[in-house]
Amino acid sequence: MPIVERILMGPGPCNPYPEATEALGRPMLGHLDPVFLGILDETCDRLRQVWSTENHLTLPISGTGTSGMEASFVNLVHPGDVVVIGVNGLFGQRMVDVAGRAGAEVVTVEAPWGQPLDPDALLSAHRSPAIIAMVHAETSTGIQNDVAAVAAGKGDALLIADCVTSLGGIPVDIDGWGVDAAYSCSQKCIGVAPGLSPFTLGPRAWERRVTQPQSWYLDLGMIDEYATTGHARKYHHTAPVAMITSLGAGLGVLLEEGLESSWARHRSCGQMLQEGLVALGLELAAAEGHRLPQLTTVKVPDGVDDAKVRQLLLERYGIEIGAGAGQWAGQVWRIGCMGHTARERNVILLLQALAEILGR
Amino acid sequence: MPIVERILMGPGPCNPYPEATEALGRPMLGHLDPVFLGILDETCDRLRQVWSTENHLTLPISGTGTSGMEASFVNLVHPGDVVVIGVNGLFGQRMVDVAGRAGAEVVTVEAPWGQPLDPDALLSAHRSPAIIAMVHAETSTGIQNDVAAVAAGKGDALLIADCVTSLGGIPVDIDGWGVDAAYSCSQKCIGVAPGLSPFTLGPRAWERRVTQPQSWYLDLGMIDEYATTGHARKYHHTAPVAMITSLGAGLGVLLEEGLESSWARHRSCGQMLQEGLVALGLELAAAEGHRLPQLTTVKVPDGVDDAKVRQLLLERYGIEIGAGAGQWAGQVWRIGCMGHTARERNVILLLQALAEILGR
Repeated sequence: MPIVERILMGPGPCNPYPEATEALGRPMLGHLDPVFLGILDETCDRLRQVWSTENHLTLPISGTGTSGMEASFVNLVHPGDVVVIGVNGLFGQRMVDVAGRAGAEVVTVEAPWGQPLDPDALLSAHRSPAIIAMVHAETSTGIQNDVAAVAAGKGDALLIADCVTSLGGIPVDIDGWGVDAAYSCSQKCIGVAPGLSPFTLGPRAWERRVTQPQSWYLDLGMIDEYATTGHARKYHHTAPVAMITSLGAGLGVLLEEGLESSWARHRSCGQMLQEGLVALGLELAAAEGHRLPQLTTVKVPDGVDDAKVRQLLLERYGIEIGAGAGQWAGQVWRIGCMGHTARERNVILLLQALAEILGR
Repeated sequence: MPIVERILMGPGPCNPYPEATEALGRPMLGHLDPVFLGILDETCDRLRQVWSTENHLTLPISGTGTSGMEASFVNLVHPGDVVVIGVNGLFGQRMVDVAGRAGAEVVTVEAPWGQPLDPDALLSAHRSPAIIAMVHAETSTGIQNDVAAVAAGKGDALLIADCVTSLGGIPVDIDGWGVDAAYSCSQKCIGVAPGLSPFTLGPRAWERRVTQPQSWYLDLGMIDEYATTGHARKYHHTAPVAMITSLGAGLGVLLEEGLESSWARHRSCGQMLQEGLVALGLELAAAEGHRLPQLTTVKVPDGVDDAKVRQLLLERYGIEIGAGAGQWAGQVWRIGCMGHTARERNVILLLQALAEILGR
């Protein structure tokens, strides 16, 4: 079967950086090989820079972004803990489900899809929550929520931030804001294949963690003893060597470009895309002033066949965009411009292809 | 930093098949791309052949082998269920920990390290266990346990088999034996990079599963709706596209060679290795008649520096072998001959290198 090549402008994966792809194919190393442990240390150091944190427990979890979400809750929720969760999209809702399965008493604070969460509403939802949790960049709606404002007012609560779609694409400042636990994924603005969840946990969260979480696989106390430097490298599970090597290489590209340059590139591509879509007569779905540059939601025009347009983009142009999800299924397209995909040439091509397909 | 190349003769990862490595570097596809869904379907079909099962729910779990262990227990253990677990090594002990965290009332049946489990002891340990669980190939000791005998006598209980080190290397017959749930890993006798857990679940287990398991990430009901053909491909988490493509390619190599040829190759390499070690005056640690060909444990001779020998093998010859673990830490070496590593040329080189280092 011939090998197919795509321009990946859905909600992820993006096209990985060539350096990340090259690293996937390097000769395999053992998970305790000193050379691999050097790569792992370097990868964790690079993650600290990208997260803007000095947290010792900063590492890639051996699963996709959702495994990072689950690791956050199962390691921090004690039975009956009150957890306030902001919900204005699919991934806030997922947090509610995951936290509930970890034994939390969940208090939800909702905002309509396409609107940001109100930080004051999150902060005043309960007198003394153990944890507040929110999504920084809602992949289902294209909305940015204000993590910094919630972090500033969290008081004694721990703050968990979902940075799956934000890390590398827009500013994330774990230590500056005061976020206690955060997770991301490898396949969006980090520009690597899917399969890992960059993760960081601060000292306040570490002190309050569950010492024997319900998940053995995601037990951070045990993972830390293998994964971070200064420990005995005690075996927990076999590290996904190729994926970690690739993550390290992708982070290297990102840091060589510079975080601020990467944010600027994502910002300018997103702006160009959003202006171009409006120029085509399309309507953006997320509230102005709160739109993510890296993930744009745009309404499917009346009378247009959602799936047919996506199919034509894929078949004629090799471009993937995403369908709407949850409440917005069939109503919007989700267009990602993340990682190595965030290049003006891709935006130009997509806008031209859409113009041709829609006859505008 | 120069790229380092190793001959991987530890307990895993092995050296992946070149076809599996090549597939890792293919252009990235979306997790809902019809081309990728074709690759996923083909990979699941190949897994069914390798597992020797018609189980519809046969798929790669998005984590390492231990995530497959955890998926087995969290999806099958109802609170207070009696689970009989055979323990004659580190991975049986790990099952006890994982099952306990899933709410099981665990009954352990032990055998000394280096000896096989007694199937009758497992079958008579409790009047009516909900589940019996055992490791087929104990990576910590090099012992093969008799899964078929336990399956034949399990009665109404479900049987969970850990096939992390067995699948692809020695016969595994899920349907023929009557195993209800089994998991493996990608990086041992399957010959692919670490990061996935091939998994299969039979209809009896499916009927008795926990409908809302404590793990959202490993919720098989939800994963199945995305991963197996015939479903709506409902999004659960972003599939690790590159790793699954690589797994499919590695399984292709294995099936083209033929399962029986692969088993024969592992058997002859293991026999050559074990005879060669004895000829060097070394003592094998696992009981005769129950030794795995793909994972050999050999005692560190008196007066020999365990770590120094492993370091010299790595530095002088580029060969990795494994240290002992758990009870056998410092007492044995663990030598894997799995997947693409299971070639006579590697055995010859290792034996010669050991002879030189040990001065024999």
